Amino acid sequence: MTALTRDDFLALDAADELAPFREQFVLPDDVIYMDGNSLGVLPRTAAARVQDVVTREWGQDLIKSWNSADWINLPQRVGALIAGLIGTDAANVVAADSTSINLYKLAAAALRMQAPRRKIITELGNFPTDLYVLQGLAEYLDVELVAVPRDQILDVVDEDTALVSLTHVHYKTGVMFDMPSVTKAVQAKGALMLWDLCHSAGALPVRLEDCNADMAIGCGYKYLNGGPGAPAFLYVAARHQAAVQPPLSGWMGHARPFDFTDVYTPAAGITRNLCGTPGVIAMSILEESLKIFAKVDLSLLRKKSQHMGQQFMQLIEQECATYGFTIVSPWDNDMRGSQVSLGHDEGYAIMQALIARGLIGDFRAPEVLRFGLTPLYLRYQDLWDAVAILRDVMESGVWNQEDYKRRSAVT
Amino acid sequence: MTALTRDDFLALDAADELAPFREQFVLPDDVIYMDGNSLGVLPRTAAARVQDVVTREWGQDLIKSWNSADWINLPQRVGALIAGLIGTDAANVVAADSTSINLYKLAAAALRMQAPRRKIITELGNFPTDLYVLQGLAEYLDVELVAVPRDQILDVVDEDTALVSLTHVHYKTGVMFDMPSVTKAVQAKGALMLWDLCHSAGALPVRLEDCNADMAIGCGYKYLNGGPGAPAFLYVAARHQAAVQPPLSGWMGHARPFDFTDVYTPAAGITRNLCGTPGVIAMSILEESLKIFAKVDLSLLRKKSQHMGQQFMQLIEQECATYGFTIVSPWDNDMRGSQVSLGHDEGYAIMQALIARGLIGDFRAPEVLRFGLTPLYLRYQDLWDAVAILRDVMESGVWNQEDYKRRSAVT
Repeated sequence: MTALTRDDFLALDAADELAPFREQFVLPDDVIYMDGNSLGVLPRTAAARVQDVVTREWGQDLIKSWNSADWINLPQRVGALIAGLIGTDAANVVAADSTSINLYKLAAAALRMQAPRRKIITELGNFPTDLYVLQGLAEYLDVELVAVPRDQILDVVDEDTALVSLTHVHYKTGVMFDMPSVTKAVQAKGALMLWDLCHSAGALPVRLEDCNADMAIGCGYKYLNGGPGAPAFLYVAARHQAAVQPPLSGWMGHARPFDFTDVYTPAAGITRNLCGTPGVIAMSILEESLKIFAKVDLSLLRKKSQHMGQQFMQLIEQECATYGFTIVSPWDNDMRGSQVSLGHDEGYAIMQALIARGLIGDFRAPEVLRFGLTPLYLRYQDLWDAVAILRDVMESGVWNQEDYKRRSAVT
Repeated sequence: MTALTRDDFLALDAADELAPFREQFVLPDDVIYMDGNSLGVLPRTAAARVQDVVTREWGQDLIKSWNSADWINLPQRVGALIAGLIGTDAANVVAADSTSINLYKLAAAALRMQAPRRKIITELGNFPTDLYVLQGLAEYLDVELVAVPRDQILDVVDEDTALVSLTHVHYKTGVMFDMPSVTKAVQAKGALMLWDLCHSAGALPVRLEDCNADMAIGCGYKYLNGGPGAPAFLYVAARHQAAVQPPLSGWMGHARPFDFTDVYTPAAGITRNLCGTPGVIAMSILEESLKIFAKVDLSLLRKKSQHMGQQFMQLIEQECATYGFTIVSPWDNDMRGSQVSLGHDEGYAIMQALIARGLIGDFRAPEVLRFGLTPLYLRYQDLWDAVAILRDVMESGVWNQEDYKRRSAVT
């Protein structure tokens, strides 16, 4: 095989139909940002939007903005924009709270719907907050949580299983479940299937309806670029909405919240899954980002993401074969999300040295270096330059400094 | 008694030690804003802060800001500023999620701490979301929720009562519970006492420690001026913190979230009550507002608020005696929060007419007009002018137009 050159990558950029989207985002100078799977970048219009929400909608119009700026429907409006990215209709998605809280709501509702089934199944090594929330719920209700390696999941689903909760794309490895077949197998046992889309929504086309998924949750601040701690979202299949009764029954999920009655009556449809007052400012920023996605051809996005993954891994093999990296993410395009993960015993220090050189990825204990692929604002040439930095850092041994080995609070 | 005049109110403003704080806030032109108990106004520095958080911390520094801008400790930092307003130490308060969700967390934790007690008691007519969340929890766990009128609450607390959950200042009437005596009576029966401080924090000095309160929750967007849907807060007395296990056990409540382990281990202290990733942008705005409060003498704030309430009610009696209003809030300063509520059968239409004239209060079904008193930015002369508008509106009968009677989505 002919060696890849920087010119090859420049040519790919020149031919890239998605290239114009890069201008929609603010990118810091002198940085290659490959951490959009942890915190997406700032959409160019977000600063103006937040300023308008703060100074005019809040500062000048104050309480009237619940009507005049339609704050009250933000969760549904933002949900509608997300719906298009995950293969469903506006009526089945709302933006709300955090991923953790939304998982709790839906898992709790699923247990009630599926009584007397009393078991939840998930993946060992799932994203920590998924495991923790399910542990908290299971312990609180004295139901059983079974966490097993991914190849055993379908074997343990049984007639006592209420819910299987899985993350579609694994946060650490980028490995992707086959959503249609897993959903089908789970449902064949009478269990409900909940997908965590934190590393899927905005990264690749998700087809919840086509897969007949029961429930889903996801994050607003990774591939959706909603800003740090952005509101999350949740999906409930239309067929289940009337049966879902989240125990977190706050006033925004009430059928008529402004009647101020003493008795909770759930709103029709997806809205009953709201709880407290929506975070208007953060949700407005998320809406701004989602307006960009509304113009994106998701199949093009996926194609570029897959190609970027292949090219990046190939370059790692070409340029960094002797430095002890393993390629953790699968080579098979259909099994990989929108990231490439490398394994290395000194992964933490290496990542710190890369960051110091302006290549921002992240580290996940104990040994994974993650590189997020965000085709809307990442160029092929960035991949070349990223691997060049990695090779330099390894060749020079600069990562082997004490400074880079000292861990900070957040990694 | 000599009739009050506008000059009296101007003189009160001239002598008001808190008057300089008004400059710290943005106030819309041609409006008298008496709805700070529903949505506080914009602190003057908030727009610049949010711009900095969005464009520099997020836009330029991206993921690094979790460390460099100390995003990771925002919940504790904001909690520390709130602690000073509610009579406790920084170690006992965090900012997080919404009031509704925080109530769920603590009420659920209380039930576990108090097993085998299986009853929660609250007030009939409590703020709806409090009732709804407790209903959702009780139904989900098959425990008993008892909601009774306020004069019967202490009578129904018994040896099966796990928790009494009350709102300190009633959202509709402004009537205030006597926190020390109620807490004591509840605890004498072995129940835990949880206070909802939504209409107290930032409105009057709260003394949780002095009252020996067990738990508390509250809102960031009313008297605390944190912006629409601002993060809420929660308090747990130091003596209970190790026993509290909220079922919403997300990764931010983990002892070492960035170890990414499979098993939940609660953080020490108040931090275990966090759940998902904090809403950084909204929490930064709330912090900005709380910096103002850090300079406020709360006893002066309370004194002005009480005096304003007295003056306002006196003025209503003097100017509007013939229009069929009842004064719903108590005359007794020690029994009234920082609002004045009037009753009127045509309250909705009257409030709409007032808003059209630039006097912004709000309406709470079925008959209450609420006027919030926010001494940091409301002047005595505003009270005079507000009552003048009310009198004009009533005298002219302008409120009796169809336009004002048509209800909007949010009232």
